[in-house]
Amino acid sequence: MTGPTADAQPPGEGVVADSAISLQDDLVRGIQDALDSGALEKAGEMLDGLHSADVADVLHLVGPDHRRLLVELVREHLDADVLVELDEPVRAEIVAQLGPRETAAAVADLETDEAVDVVDTLDDATQAQVLGALEADQRASIEEGLAYAQDSAGRLMQRDLVAVPSFWTIGQTIDHLREAGDLPDEFYELFVVDPAHHPIGTVPLNRAMRTKRPVEVSAIMDDEPRIVPVDMDQEAVAFLFEQYDLTSAPVVDASGRLVGVIMVDDVVDIILEEAEEDILRLGGVSESGLHDSVLKTTRRRFPWLLVNLATAVLASGVIAFFEGTIEQIVALAVLMPIVASMGGNVGTQTLTITVRGLATRDLTSANALRLFGREIAVSLINAVLFAVLAGAVAFLWFDSAGLALVILAAMAVNIVVAGAAGMAIPLGLNRIGVDPALAATVFVTTITDVVGFLAFLGLAAWFLL
Amino acid sequence: MTGPTADAQPPGEGVVADSAISLQDDLVRGIQDALDSGALEKAGEMLDGLHSADVADVLHLVGPDHRRLLVELVREHLDADVLVELDEPVRAEIVAQLGPRETAAAVADLETDEAVDVVDTLDDATQAQVLGALEADQRASIEEGLAYAQDSAGRLMQRDLVAVPSFWTIGQTIDHLREAGDLPDEFYELFVVDPAHHPIGTVPLNRAMRTKRPVEVSAIMDDEPRIVPVDMDQEAVAFLFEQYDLTSAPVVDASGRLVGVIMVDDVVDIILEEAEEDILRLGGVSESGLHDSVLKTTRRRFPWLLVNLATAVLASGVIAFFEGTIEQIVALAVLMPIVASMGGNVGTQTLTITVRGLATRDLTSANALRLFGREIAVSLINAVLFAVLAGAVAFLWFDSAGLALVILAAMAVNIVVAGAAGMAIPLGLNRIGVDPALAATVFVTTITDVVGFLAFLGLAAWFLL
Repeated sequence: MTGPTADAQPPGEGVVADSAISLQDDLVRGIQDALDSGALEKAGEMLDGLHSADVADVLHLVGPDHRRLLVELVREHLDADVLVELDEPVRAEIVAQLGPRETAAAVADLETDEAVDVVDTLDDATQAQVLGALEADQRASIEEGLAYAQDSAGRLMQRDLVAVPSFWTIGQTIDHLREAGDLPDEFYELFVVDPAHHPIGTVPLNRAMRTKRPVEVSAIMDDEPRIVPVDMDQEAVAFLFEQYDLTSAPVVDASGRLVGVIMVDDVVDIILEEAEEDILRLGGVSESGLHDSVLKTTRRRFPWLLVNLATAVLASGVIAFFEGTIEQIVALAVLMPIVASMGGNVGTQTLTITVRGLATRDLTSANALRLFGREIAVSLINAVLFAVLAGAVAFLWFDSAGLALVILAAMAVNIVVAGAAGMAIPLGLNRIGVDPALAATVFVTTITDVVGFLAFLGLAAWFLL
Repeated sequence: MTGPTADAQPPGEGVVADSAISLQDDLVRGIQDALDSGALEKAGEMLDGLHSADVADVLHLVGPDHRRLLVELVREHLDADVLVELDEPVRAEIVAQLGPRETAAAVADLETDEAVDVVDTLDDATQAQVLGALEADQRASIEEGLAYAQDSAGRLMQRDLVAVPSFWTIGQTIDHLREAGDLPDEFYELFVVDPAHHPIGTVPLNRAMRTKRPVEVSAIMDDEPRIVPVDMDQEAVAFLFEQYDLTSAPVVDASGRLVGVIMVDDVVDIILEEAEEDILRLGGVSESGLHDSVLKTTRRRFPWLLVNLATAVLASGVIAFFEGTIEQIVALAVLMPIVASMGGNVGTQTLTITVRGLATRDLTSANALRLFGREIAVSLINAVLFAVLAGAVAFLWFDSAGLALVILAAMAVNIVVAGAAGMAIPLGLNRIGVDPALAATVFVTTITDVVGFLAFLGLAAWFLL
């Protein structure tokens, strides 16, 4: 094994530049071309040596027909980790293709947490078949994992870990690690336990390695480990890792016994998942599912659109109430969407900030009142600025001071209401235990539509007729 | 050091439940009360023993007056890490209070990457003062860090790392680690280098610890390390860590020499930052800045609202074109927002999915066409469903088959256009190098407003008059 020599070849072979992404694109196209031209063997070779996450990406990016061919090519030596990396619909497709026996063989190669993860996403019939094809002890440990609540620490943790009694020395520990056959593939810390198997400290591996053999682990351990109860929600686990820069954390059962370990790479996935969920919910989509079927996607988006239709009809009801007024001054119909739209945008801005503040815990009951005051102040300034701007537009367009004053007043009212609602509604939803990202958008825009139309048309009916 | 005994006290002392968050809230309120009642010493004690990230949270959550008092209380033993954890505006406040000399003393305690991070956010004058108060070698290494492009790997990396020559044995390595005084505080891997200091492999610490002393590191290293060039964008770095479950990665300069290491906890922050950026941009907010002043916040949100005003006026122009039609059929003014609003929602859904797909690299040029087809199919189904629903609403409300057919047709057109635009616009923006999250929302909603009004009022003018 020799590395590149000095000056010879700049950034070594392993260097991954930003272009890695377009390289992957080229790879996918190359594989598709090979499959289309019937060069199956060549396509299979192009997958050889790829990291399991990259293989999963390729399987995601090619279409269903190519996917089926590729799985056929690699099924004999399919890395079980590829299954873990797949999105649910694609995984279901491939599991169906592999059949329960081959799927079970792959699942048997995985760490418990990953095996549970894969098995959990299968439909009930397939799940039963795959579990049935596993050996009894593997089936038992997966069923135990499935018994933990979804999105709990119990689901995230892996069982294999390294625990040492506090009276062991570093020397004993190193000797144990060199001899033991059943160690996890990866670990970053030693967990120090008392005789009842309660975690009482952690020793980062780098500290263990710099310590001389006769020293006892208890002398160098961090004695206030961040301990995760097995039923903790994954969002709270992610918060712990972010806040305290953890690489792994011990998980304990209700009696405080060490039962597993959560690793940072699993938490990275959770962090992405949680941020993703907020983005999608704010955008009115419940799940991303780029790989779902057309029908499933439609079914998922339908409810949100139906709610929006209902609220749009509600706002139209407000307009209908002023039909007589609009009949006399048609300019009102022209200008009214401006008032509603600006309110909607101010509301969305405030709402976005609030939902994120809640998610990142920068916004808590300790500072909510102060920040609410700030949002109102910002809305007031924007209300003045945009009321004057909208008034000026209306005046120049329709040459009517009355109309200009009415839109000015309505705009000011709606922007302040938008700012207040954009903050109050997510805070309120959060207080009653509803995810503010899920429901706040529709509430806030309904309010800004209704208030916008009502204020504008109401003031017009009052003063201009 | 003894741990809790069996059965005695369930979840040990260190257990952090979901209630940790409300506990923190109580803490903040307790500190505020103590400060208000003049019990300064008590308030200071409540901060004692907190993790630096928690101290930073408390400083964020209390108001500016309380913050000033707290900093006064802890300034003598302020943990430099607290500065790292602070948001920019709060950090600027506290640095101003500490003055350049004390700030420099704190900065001197930090790892290079963190010191660069802190110094970088100071305004130019303060930055010069703080750098001037540092010792020459520290100043030099921070200035070197500042020379790397913002958001590049060079900014993220820390200099201190553990590199070993490939011919060393595990025994030599352990002896070196036990003797060396200048090791980084934390490390998860050993980097194996060739004589030119190019990284040629990595050894996870757990593997080093389980290997017997006489084995050479080259025999157990991963020989295809994921290497990060110093100018790689932080988003690409985050992708590498996510994709390959890395805990640390070697950073090389243009000649391939090992110059630093990026650690997973810094990458977790980047992942959060990038997801945050997308959420905020989709919501029409450029930066979160919960701690910015009212004026700064207003200034930041103003441009987006101004663009929205312009596009709203544009949409109103379309309505104005049909003033005559609306004068004759006022019901059109009542129903037209429904068409625009449904288009806006379908557009936002598709746009959200597309922006996220691009960000997570699940959507690439390899599968864009296929997924575009899927979005069109979904939009077509929704178009049919909601066109019929809206037609039914209009018929029941206004008892006019003509009006019902017009809204049916306009709704169908607008929903299909919305689906197409919601995908095509972010893809197009991405292709020309503009962040799709930043600009796509305003483009898409403008299109759905204009097309919605145009289709509905135009069809009405054509068929109903």
